[in-house]
Amino acid sequence: MSKTISLIGLGAMGTALANALLDAGHVTTVWNRTSARADALIARGARLAETVTEAIAASDAIILCLTDYVAVETTVADVGPRLAGKTVVNLTNGRPDEVRAVATRLGASGARYLDGGIMATPPMIGTPDAFILYSGSAQAFEDATEHLATFGQNHYLGEDPVLAAVNDLALLSAMYGLFGGYLHATALAGSVGVTAKQFLPLVEPWLAAMMTALPDYAERIDSGDHARDVMSNLAMQSVAITNIVAASRSQGIDPAFMEPMERLAQKRLAGGFGADEVSGIIEVMRGK
Amino acid sequence: MSKTISLIGLGAMGTALANALLDAGHVTTVWNRTSARADALIARGARLAETVTEAIAASDAIILCLTDYVAVETTVADVGPRLAGKTVVNLTNGRPDEVRAVATRLGASGARYLDGGIMATPPMIGTPDAFILYSGSAQAFEDATEHLATFGQNHYLGEDPVLAAVNDLALLSAMYGLFGGYLHATALAGSVGVTAKQFLPLVEPWLAAMMTALPDYAERIDSGDHARDVMSNLAMQSVAITNIVAASRSQGIDPAFMEPMERLAQKRLAGGFGADEVSGIIEVMRGK
Repeated sequence: MSKTISLIGLGAMGTALANALLDAGHVTTVWNRTSARADALIARGARLAETVTEAIAASDAIILCLTDYVAVETTVADVGPRLAGKTVVNLTNGRPDEVRAVATRLGASGARYLDGGIMATPPMIGTPDAFILYSGSAQAFEDATEHLATFGQNHYLGEDPVLAAVNDLALLSAMYGLFGGYLHATALAGSVGVTAKQFLPLVEPWLAAMMTALPDYAERIDSGDHARDVMSNLAMQSVAITNIVAASRSQGIDPAFMEPMERLAQKRLAGGFGADEVSGIIEVMRGK
Repeated sequence: MSKTISLIGLGAMGTALANALLDAGHVTTVWNRTSARADALIARGARLAETVTEAIAASDAIILCLTDYVAVETTVADVGPRLAGKTVVNLTNGRPDEVRAVATRLGASGARYLDGGIMATPPMIGTPDAFILYSGSAQAFEDATEHLATFGQNHYLGEDPVLAAVNDLALLSAMYGLFGGYLHATALAGSVGVTAKQFLPLVEPWLAAMMTALPDYAERIDSGDHARDVMSNLAMQSVAITNIVAASRSQGIDPAFMEPMERLAQKRLAGGFGADEVSGIIEVMRGK
């Protein structure tokens, strides 16, 4: 039969995780600062722990899903010794330095620490569209895998506990680049009367086509060779980038999302890399 | 049989266009400032015009594909009257203000002016992957459609000649957003030892999944309603954005590509729109 699992923190995400565990028939103990948030879960068969200590005692594996790392520190402050020999899966959003601090602290208490970054909104939990990054104790990942599998697609990245948090932020930054570019593009097209709905059938296939450049960029980034077989060189592209910024201004659109590309492209050009692919801009970002 | 067409400008893109016309069996007259660039095309059956005037006289439709609008102005400076009744398709890259000036000038000469923005690299010309935006004279688009169809997928956007140039720049800005976000993401993941090749299988499906948000954003942008059915609100997202900027700095990555999102998100938050979807940032970009 299913092993028990304890879940601490019943915000929107924690509640979605609890429901996925219950859907899969797992014996689930929950705890929340405000216990009323557990009512619907209890009606579905979840067990309510009265205290954090009780939630920890109930299971070998404990999932934390709290608002932030201040809440994590507060919640685990007095229960250190009780975590010895337990698996702790921390799915709270945070920065790499916060993850490092908690991983070190819980590791010192004798817990097997696994950190996770959830790349999904609460309604996506329990569907194959949710994907979740994990890093930290491989043993913890193995111990909890049956429970974690109920949330979505799992990707274990390695023993360093910060890997999940850094890759989580990295993926979000790719998303914000996409969204920023899309909003800029849509605002610019909108300035000549093209609606967002009219622009969509142009921009969607265009972005899908441009995404096919990424594997080539990845090779250039890993090899450091941005000069071989160049399809569209930086000198040529920087003309277009400058035109975008100028045209945005004259159309009354804040060029904020395009200014960094202009600035970094100029810096790279000044370094003598005008004949290289635009992927070389990563060298400027790394301070090289 | 095919009508004749004249092509002025044989850079990498002009040469690709000429080859596509010849591949389709069109009688093609070419002119270039340096005539040696025409040799390979002549060997394939193209006719060489000795002067711009001769190239214009040879056909009812003339395609311009020059380095920039300075070259366009120089090339058409003395031939104005000869363009009366002709169709002029200008595929030179430029800013909307430059397009407007040339369209007005050639229109005054009695030409039917069609402006085009080529969303492809030269090797893509003649394949279905090339797509080309047109705007200006609908009659010119109809007259030249048989020739233009040899280049790729054509999208006619309307009578205002600047539509193609603005939408061209808009699509490029969407691409630069995608690329900037990808480079930032890859640099951040790289800072903890994840190679670009290792990161690719995470970032590609993630970006493809995030692209599915765009139709919803388009609806919000057109309606101005960023508050209904919010999946992930700006207040929550701005925490992640600030974490990305902070984590990038502490990992030694220039946060340039993420700073505008942080700044615009804060501005939107200060306006009281924390419960809205991130799409509302477009209102800040438009100065609203």
